[in-house]
Amino acid sequence: MKIGIVGGTGDIGEGMAMRLAPHFDVLVGSREKEKAEISCQQGNETLKKRGHECYLSAASNQKAIDDAEIVILAIPFRHLAGTLETLHGFDDKIVVSPINPMEKREFFVFVPPPEGSAALLVKKILPERARVCSAFNTIAANKWKALDEELVYSVPVCSDDAAAKQQVMKVINTISKLQAFDAGPLAVSAMVESLTPLLLNIARYNRMRDVGIQFR
Amino acid sequence: MKIGIVGGTGDIGEGMAMRLAPHFDVLVGSREKEKAEISCQQGNETLKKRGHECYLSAASNQKAIDDAEIVILAIPFRHLAGTLETLHGFDDKIVVSPINPMEKREFFVFVPPPEGSAALLVKKILPERARVCSAFNTIAANKWKALDEELVYSVPVCSDDAAAKQQVMKVINTISKLQAFDAGPLAVSAMVESLTPLLLNIARYNRMRDVGIQFR
Repeated sequence: MKIGIVGGTGDIGEGMAMRLAPHFDVLVGSREKEKAEISCQQGNETLKKRGHECYLSAASNQKAIDDAEIVILAIPFRHLAGTLETLHGFDDKIVVSPINPMEKREFFVFVPPPEGSAALLVKKILPERARVCSAFNTIAANKWKALDEELVYSVPVCSDDAAAKQQVMKVINTISKLQAFDAGPLAVSAMVESLTPLLLNIARYNRMRDVGIQFR
Repeated sequence: MKIGIVGGTGDIGEGMAMRLAPHFDVLVGSREKEKAEISCQQGNETLKKRGHECYLSAASNQKAIDDAEIVILAIPFRHLAGTLETLHGFDDKIVVSPINPMEKREFFVFVPPPEGSAALLVKKILPERARVCSAFNTIAANKWKALDEELVYSVPVCSDDAAAKQQVMKVINTISKLQAFDAGPLAVSAMVESLTPLLLNIARYNRMRDVGIQFR
């Protein structure tokens, strides 16, 4: 299966690509293909050193959509609408939003768009045939990148498309020790997205780093 | 230290009282004192059988406030404003809200009041000198009651009163294997309260029971 990462050279995307590459064909998308090429070259060297026979492929963001079955939108909320405007071809693709609309004020605050959540905004912007899911919201960029550490976290997944949700949950369950949980329809994504500013507050006020969650 | 539970014979309050009794003097408050007396008699028998030398005391909700240093509001959100109207004497008391404003629709939904959260509503209703905290939001009634089970959960605590927050965190850390986390000011309580409907959705869609959380 091919997974395309829009924003694959960004803070979250880069580590995500490295974690996915041992299990899936990964297309690292970027606005600037040259940036993707440098990132993939470095990533492939690291993967080879770690004994993995797998390849990250550099791509434009558009190609990362066109050639993939699952597309992960690894972009910050403030660039979400602008980036999606420049892209097309989402029909029948599984589109995963790990995006959390939040701001750092006196503390970290959940600031959802009028639609209720980033995932619901994605659904509104994309064509009706895009199969939108939210997932991976609460895993910190540093944790994705720390390849020597297992990711022992729970990952809630929301979608109105049951089959797409099942496929995304399967992908999640192949990565490190992540455990996928069905969190219900896409409307529940607001509760999931607001977890991330909460975890950032917990980290800040308890002098911790990169706090994640487990359901139990 | 004396802890008073307003609504101490309710679904959450009853188990909470049993878990607190081995460590603190617990006043079980109820609108009907007779109900509190029956509940305390049963509770004390159970505690004695389990080898604890401790006592639950029955009280009116008002006495549970008057005689305690920490008051826990173990009441459902729909009764919150009405109950607080009938009570007084909150000046200088530490008041803990474990209350989650939510509704069961197609799925569980977070439905905060205009103030932003139940805890912020409590703060608005009570006199300025009440020391309002939110805590215990995500622990299910059944888990409080299952005295043979350890509670291995994380408990986020919010308050604008640093000393009150520290005291509540100490209380939390004495109960079973609960671990308190400073989640920041009371305004963060909205993110904590919305966790509970999320956990109920997770339980429902994954056929689990009484799902809790751990930060890690």
